[in-house]
Amino acid sequence: MFERLRGTRDFLPNEMAARKKVFSSIKKSVEEFGFFETDTPGIELFELYSIKSGEEIIDELYAFEDKGGRMISLRPELTPSVVRVLVSRAKELSFPVKWYSIPRLWRYERPQSGRLREFYQLNIDIFGSEDPRADTEVISCAIKLLCDLGFDESDIEVRISDRRMLQEFLLNLGITNYQDVLKKIDKREKISERDFKEMLAGISLDHTQINEIEEFLNSKGDFLKSIEGLSCAYQGEGISKVIFSLRKIAQSLNDRGYEKFITFDPSIVRGLDYYTGMVFEVHDRKREFRALFGGGRYDNLAELFGGEHIPAVGFGMGDAVLELMMRRKNIWPEEKVEIDLFIATIGDVEKEVSKLLTSLRNNNFKVDCDIMGRNLSNQIKFANKLGAKSLLIVGERDLNEGNVTLRDLESGKESKISLNGIISEPSKYLTKVL
Amino acid sequence: MFERLRGTRDFLPNEMAARKKVFSSIKKSVEEFGFFETDTPGIELFELYSIKSGEEIIDELYAFEDKGGRMISLRPELTPSVVRVLVSRAKELSFPVKWYSIPRLWRYERPQSGRLREFYQLNIDIFGSEDPRADTEVISCAIKLLCDLGFDESDIEVRISDRRMLQEFLLNLGITNYQDVLKKIDKREKISERDFKEMLAGISLDHTQINEIEEFLNSKGDFLKSIEGLSCAYQGEGISKVIFSLRKIAQSLNDRGYEKFITFDPSIVRGLDYYTGMVFEVHDRKREFRALFGGGRYDNLAELFGGEHIPAVGFGMGDAVLELMMRRKNIWPEEKVEIDLFIATIGDVEKEVSKLLTSLRNNNFKVDCDIMGRNLSNQIKFANKLGAKSLLIVGERDLNEGNVTLRDLESGKESKISLNGIISEPSKYLTKVL
Repeated sequence: MFERLRGTRDFLPNEMAARKKVFSSIKKSVEEFGFFETDTPGIELFELYSIKSGEEIIDELYAFEDKGGRMISLRPELTPSVVRVLVSRAKELSFPVKWYSIPRLWRYERPQSGRLREFYQLNIDIFGSEDPRADTEVISCAIKLLCDLGFDESDIEVRISDRRMLQEFLLNLGITNYQDVLKKIDKREKISERDFKEMLAGISLDHTQINEIEEFLNSKGDFLKSIEGLSCAYQGEGISKVIFSLRKIAQSLNDRGYEKFITFDPSIVRGLDYYTGMVFEVHDRKREFRALFGGGRYDNLAELFGGEHIPAVGFGMGDAVLELMMRRKNIWPEEKVEIDLFIATIGDVEKEVSKLLTSLRNNNFKVDCDIMGRNLSNQIKFANKLGAKSLLIVGERDLNEGNVTLRDLESGKESKISLNGIISEPSKYLTKVL
Repeated sequence: MFERLRGTRDFLPNEMAARKKVFSSIKKSVEEFGFFETDTPGIELFELYSIKSGEEIIDELYAFEDKGGRMISLRPELTPSVVRVLVSRAKELSFPVKWYSIPRLWRYERPQSGRLREFYQLNIDIFGSEDPRADTEVISCAIKLLCDLGFDESDIEVRISDRRMLQEFLLNLGITNYQDVLKKIDKREKISERDFKEMLAGISLDHTQINEIEEFLNSKGDFLKSIEGLSCAYQGEGISKVIFSLRKIAQSLNDRGYEKFITFDPSIVRGLDYYTGMVFEVHDRKREFRALFGGGRYDNLAELFGGEHIPAVGFGMGDAVLELMMRRKNIWPEEKVEIDLFIATIGDVEKEVSKLLTSLRNNNFKVDCDIMGRNLSNQIKFANKLGAKSLLIVGERDLNEGNVTLRDLESGKESKISLNGIISEPSKYLTKVL
């Protein structure tokens, strides 16, 4: 017997039915924000990732040489592919573009709760707008899609910051090895305060600087109030610009009714190297799970990929943590399949069944029938397993009078109807599952 | 600038919108036949394919060693994965099962018209029934889904045969190296008659045998009539069983109204090693393209994979030839995106826009808005590019009277409406795209 690879998943129809409901809810929410779906290959040139994806992702690549001698890789994230498409087809596009996709991604990691080797990840991105309204759209979309799935502000917290703010703050402290400090801050939540401080000391930060950083990172709170606080505490052209943009985002999110979801949290930096401005993460309030998702601004990636300057903001949300969180809250859809009708047969009635099948399916009903030659009681058992709403019994005896028996499998109510009637006007007798 | 790998594709939103319509039509058709969607990984153990997929597929595998030292492969076809799932989870299932999936597949081939290195392939299979009605269901589903896409009997031909029929025929001629002959027959359409005959002579067939084979393979025609002809020409227990089953399939397909689509064609054998009985291929009538799809019975694969005996019948249809055929007939959907409403703004009206966006999206409208600070005329141009059905102009002056302007972008008709009205009851003013 063969096994599937560790960290990959199979989905039977009932499991798939639940997942399809979740994905279709997500797509609906995202499309309400004017995002359009795109699609890109599952395999790409290796160099697409070696440029800017960050060491962690490079270490986890499924990369190999193809039969033509090219180094290629299964995609570990979508952003590089999307930016590649954007750069190569920019001339066809009217900016800003709002794109989404739910790609299958692969990372060679140690499989654990909420982390798989093959997973799906919703990606949404706005390209071509530097305006804070683009940031607001992206964050609002994140919140709305979670609400549409059944979450509310008691479940989730959106923690927002801005890398430029942190950079300005560090410059104010006389610290210039910004990228090094950023990498340490990204690891902060996984280690003790003492270890964190030691790490900072290890890259030549002094005691005062370290304490100031620690204090700054802990200044988490109400988004708009925090921004006002920062605007009093820090001056200068650089920081004013960042504060102006963050204030606009905070104000709009409040106007849109998302105030209770959002927190200003300067400790959020995000691992990926390519972020340049606003960054955010979504967590469950109880912090039982790893980040549900994260995103932010990455205004320089198109240029790095050989294109024009195209500002960008977006996020990626994996399906594994989402499923864990939905199951915990009991909002994962019921895992069951459904059809409209099962046709059970008694005797040789194949001609009539053929006519029924063609007519009902041409009228868009989901219909199945016996293909095993089972007795009636076993056919009915099977119809129930398929989640059939109705059962149509086609028997030789009934057919002598031109009749068939229609049974509602929920109520058990049964009635004799004319075979020709249901063939010519199925909608008079049946309703559709969806 | 980065390029995508040869034989892979990117889809922009307008291209994707057309493809989504095609895929959703296919899913609908298939679900009307009671097939349920499943999902399996894009990567599998290499051995899953080395067993029974046939040399051609093995040569084209994207196979490599993963970081844990396992030989793995991108999936080149779905059937082995589905059978793996079936065998490993047979105890949870109520047979027969009818499954479908539209996996992304990878084969390292020379990219050409209708043949790509990465493509999608609809797979449908019925497991657990030996009954010819299962074969009929699968072939009917193939025909129905093509009709639902806009094809008719003048476009497509379903050529059906049975490997056992050919085997019995060869045994009657005293030929026992059945598999060798089968491989030659599979190549027959690509070479001249003379080369074909030479190939057969090369595996020690004599002149009479070769001519009889050639005559048999050319005995293409009306399905039911051909079967009746064969039933007169050939006797014996083995062949009677095959004829009985083919006659039932032919009769049912006629009863279902698909007579004009189907032909009996004994030259159809299908490349894959695992087929055991009925085999079929779908072609465009003009034979401009390679086979649109093929399938058949493969009753032994579950056993080969270490499971019980689970009879199976199904087919796989790739998206590349389908797209070529649809474009040739001008039934490929229009490549355009659409949204319900674009909100254009004049002046500082952000609070009002925020309220509108939240309300309209909560009411499931697809809404976009300006995030560029453009002037009105450029906002309207952009709205048209997004395929917006309506335009809502929110301007400071109108707002003084509590009004906004709603314009139908198709008719150009415009009316002043109350801001509070459209916020509280959007469905009174707008209709949805879908």
